[in-house]
Amino acid sequence: MDDTATAAARDAADPLASFRDRFAFPDPDLVYLDGNSLGRLPHATVARATDVVTRAWGERLIRSWNEDWWEAPLRVGDALAPLLGAGPGEVAIADSTSVNLFKLVVAALRARSGRRRILTDDLNFPSDLYVLAGAADLVGDGRHVEVVPSPDGVHGPVDAIIDRLDDDVALVTLSLVTFKSGYLYDLEAVTAAAHAAGALVLWDLSHAAGAVPIDLEGAGADLAVGCTYKYLNGGPGSPAFLYVRRRLHGQLQNPITGWWGHTRPFDFSPGYAATDGIRRFLTGTAPIISTLLIEPAVAIVAEAGIEAIRAKSVAQTEQLIGRWERDLAPLGFSLNTPRPAARRGSHVSLGHPDGLGIDLALINDHNVLPDFRPPDNLRFGLAPLTTRYADIDAAVDALIDIVTTGRHRDYEGARPAVT
Amino acid sequence: MDDTATAAARDAADPLASFRDRFAFPDPDLVYLDGNSLGRLPHATVARATDVVTRAWGERLIRSWNEDWWEAPLRVGDALAPLLGAGPGEVAIADSTSVNLFKLVVAALRARSGRRRILTDDLNFPSDLYVLAGAADLVGDGRHVEVVPSPDGVHGPVDAIIDRLDDDVALVTLSLVTFKSGYLYDLEAVTAAAHAAGALVLWDLSHAAGAVPIDLEGAGADLAVGCTYKYLNGGPGSPAFLYVRRRLHGQLQNPITGWWGHTRPFDFSPGYAATDGIRRFLTGTAPIISTLLIEPAVAIVAEAGIEAIRAKSVAQTEQLIGRWERDLAPLGFSLNTPRPAARRGSHVSLGHPDGLGIDLALINDHNVLPDFRPPDNLRFGLAPLTTRYADIDAAVDALIDIVTTGRHRDYEGARPAVT
Repeated sequence: MDDTATAAARDAADPLASFRDRFAFPDPDLVYLDGNSLGRLPHATVARATDVVTRAWGERLIRSWNEDWWEAPLRVGDALAPLLGAGPGEVAIADSTSVNLFKLVVAALRARSGRRRILTDDLNFPSDLYVLAGAADLVGDGRHVEVVPSPDGVHGPVDAIIDRLDDDVALVTLSLVTFKSGYLYDLEAVTAAAHAAGALVLWDLSHAAGAVPIDLEGAGADLAVGCTYKYLNGGPGSPAFLYVRRRLHGQLQNPITGWWGHTRPFDFSPGYAATDGIRRFLTGTAPIISTLLIEPAVAIVAEAGIEAIRAKSVAQTEQLIGRWERDLAPLGFSLNTPRPAARRGSHVSLGHPDGLGIDLALINDHNVLPDFRPPDNLRFGLAPLTTRYADIDAAVDALIDIVTTGRHRDYEGARPAVT
Repeated sequence: MDDTATAAARDAADPLASFRDRFAFPDPDLVYLDGNSLGRLPHATVARATDVVTRAWGERLIRSWNEDWWEAPLRVGDALAPLLGAGPGEVAIADSTSVNLFKLVVAALRARSGRRRILTDDLNFPSDLYVLAGAADLVGDGRHVEVVPSPDGVHGPVDAIIDRLDDDVALVTLSLVTFKSGYLYDLEAVTAAAHAAGALVLWDLSHAAGAVPIDLEGAGADLAVGCTYKYLNGGPGSPAFLYVRRRLHGQLQNPITGWWGHTRPFDFSPGYAATDGIRRFLTGTAPIISTLLIEPAVAIVAEAGIEAIRAKSVAQTEQLIGRWERDLAPLGFSLNTPRPAARRGSHVSLGHPDGLGIDLALINDHNVLPDFRPPDNLRFGLAPLTTRYADIDAAVDALIDIVTTGRHRDYEGARPAVT
């Protein structure tokens, strides 16, 4: 069979194929490979948006706080928890990933007050690095961040991180799946190594949640944060999640002490008293509409099942990497993602010296939408609930066409889009 | 004329009456006096929600970041700015009020590093007091909060605050309109006094924005935060705003250093470098749907004009207080809001020993919806764009009916709703 027939056969046999019916495809010709940045819109979300805006807000007004909204951050967190390997009451929806990271990092540094160092790597999302540095500076007393370099810009520096673990390390924090190369850390092994040194561990699950099986409890992980707008399809900038292992709830203090973390917020008493459980890591009033729109999407991901999603994701990244090997490597593309499936998430990065021009040609001339990460990195997000095997072939065929015809040179001097 | 005729005449002559047509009233019999907690739904917001979800997210997908979303927090901030007396580039939509307060308080304490004290009052919203204490504790070096007591639980302790100003005060922070009594501070006078002592001033405008004219620039105020879901009708938990006076942009550092405050976020460089302008006070990805739904509502408030809104607000609070004086004081209600219009915002608090039972009887037996603040406080929010003079009479008539028939005793032992 040729590529087209192979892809068609795989799409026809795909046990997740019917899940595409749950999502909107207003432009059926668009090859959207950016679901790792903004997941597609579920149909159920449209209905939910109407209900929340028109009925819950417009009709029930303030009464909806009691009827639904006050519990929403924890209820949606509980719905998400099984996808993270977390238990009920361990996950909440709140704020942005960066703000949640700040809260948990400051809490962790204060809980390990005799230790000065935060270990991370240079594959971590830059905003995480910024937040870590800011938090360390604010807590003071010599706290600082050690950014361990990746050996090759693709793979996580696991051994180097483990080598640097000692009783001065308060916290190890990494992206479980790194944002550019898609490297997938061994959650259990790194957590165990950090714990052996007495450090806490915080995982950023932004590029992992909804794409790879995660077992926070099984690994004994302490803390996690992540966004909900990628493989969880929560919508643009949908609020983030935070996870705190149950046994740590009483030991960690949210430094941004707002009323949503208070034990009796509606007493309006002047002194702060942290409530029990995960709610103590909340701060201010949640953006309810954006929060509630996460719920139908998470239900779809849970219904599909993370094992089935992962199986298709591995098959799809293998397909793309196989075609890279055969067709794209000869055209000057490098693979900037780990080769073994066990060590990568659900996006694949391909480097090319003319990456930006190629990206723009894909978008403008081929209706293929990946994203671009400087300096030369094309990132293809394969979202198993909405991406077809045929889409991957279409993208590769477009890449071949662009580079062989030189169409990317039409975009010389262009600047990258903001996302 | 009797009360009914008087109110009907005032509603007929109300220059803002037509603005009611901009909002949804699915239950025309509901007397909603909680617009100070959650403003009503504008019709335009329903259309905007559909557009954002279905077109911008569903159809344009990631492209909407360039086409609209990346600039939204500043664009909506600029639309809001005139209602605060702020200039372009001085206001941004971000996070929650509590998170914004944290960011700006930490920034202020670090900018006034030789000074140890934060002055506030005990009428301030409790979440503000919690955040202040948490921020002071985190910055350390003896920073602490001084909560100046109100002389009577109703009026702001202006003189006592001014008396305590000295060169050890880093920051004065107050709610411009206090959440329970509705006391309205003199923005200009307090700001000037604080500045004379070399302190910075931060105003929480949550209960003021969209209800009273505010001139931050005229007063020379340094910092402000506030929510957008009350008189600005932004929707449940809609993201908050923050204001930083332009001349301070370069002097203050956001302590939660996320990528949205970076000067070149899409370079994904490992080191943080704060951008210029108000954007440096952003942190993580904004909840876009909740952010964009603020925009049509703010446009309506701006179109109505804050002076016209204030004129009607004063007339309506006077009407309610007049009826309190005549009809409710004899029934045991106390006025927990300042008597002079110049010293109050747009909500009126009435105390009664059986306040909670009366609140529940209003809601359940009379379809009148105020809110309740413990221990005994009924809070009536008069939102000039949606509240009729007739609504106020209906609420007072219901209060009279409840107390004279004793219907509130049906609710003995009930617990207050969470909001």
